[in-house]
Amino acid sequence: MKNIIDMSWTDNVAFQSDIDGHNVIIDADILTGGNNLGPRPKKLMLVALAGCTGIDVIMILKKMKVIPDAFNVIVEGDLTDEHPKYYHKIRIIYKFKGKDLPQDKLEKAVKLSEEKYCSVTALYKKAINMETKIIVEE
Amino acid sequence: MKNIIDMSWTDNVAFQSDIDGHNVIIDADILTGGNNLGPRPKKLMLVALAGCTGIDVIMILKKMKVIPDAFNVIVEGDLTDEHPKYYHKIRIIYKFKGKDLPQDKLEKAVKLSEEKYCSVTALYKKAINMETKIIVEE
Repeated sequence: MKNIIDMSWTDNVAFQSDIDGHNVIIDADILTGGNNLGPRPKKLMLVALAGCTGIDVIMILKKMKVIPDAFNVIVEGDLTDEHPKYYHKIRIIYKFKGKDLPQDKLEKAVKLSEEKYCSVTALYKKAINMETKIIVEE
Repeated sequence: MKNIIDMSWTDNVAFQSDIDGHNVIIDADILTGGNNLGPRPKKLMLVALAGCTGIDVIMILKKMKVIPDAFNVIVEGDLTDEHPKYYHKIRIIYKFKGKDLPQDKLEKAVKLSEEKYCSVTALYKKAINMETKIIVEE
């Protein structure tokens, strides 16, 4: 099985593609010669990670009948000082909001995603130092 | 230096964030319980790669005064058979269209991106078998 994407150069340094029926545009910022028509590609690496593990966790929690009032996945990526500046350390913060949320089930859902289901985590942790934190607010 | 993103769970299993001033939505497909409100996260890993190296290459070619009529970056990611199904091999195809495009400059631009500038390539190649191909059409 494989995934294929095809991005077309559109204007200046921007690229566009249809991904799963959605128009996705990538561009550089104005300071480096782009027009900011879309997000920076390197940030999308963090979005891919947050989306992958976030979808896992909420799917698992729904099966456990645990429904938070709010749920955020915050991803911080530390960049190397030297070019090419890539992420050498990533922190994933799972922030849940809700009354009487069962901590053990939240932890289990996160663990299942990180160790079993999330293919983006599985890949990134081969090359990047990864940390996880769970925050629960009432 | 670090990049930080914060994705909010919005509905069913979809997540949303503002990335560089752009609304980015991630969702699962309908078959796996999502509503396809946005692309799949794993495909965004390929978009990040295509965008990163594509922006590099077109910036370098502009400096070399080489302007193709069209330029596409196609990325094929082969997934493992077992869960979590992650990319174990990636092929990047740089497809240029134009009359009398100088092959040596195209190759040099691609090589500079892959070996020096593109931070997404730099990271992925630590964990994934990567191949490159250049196609030129008149």
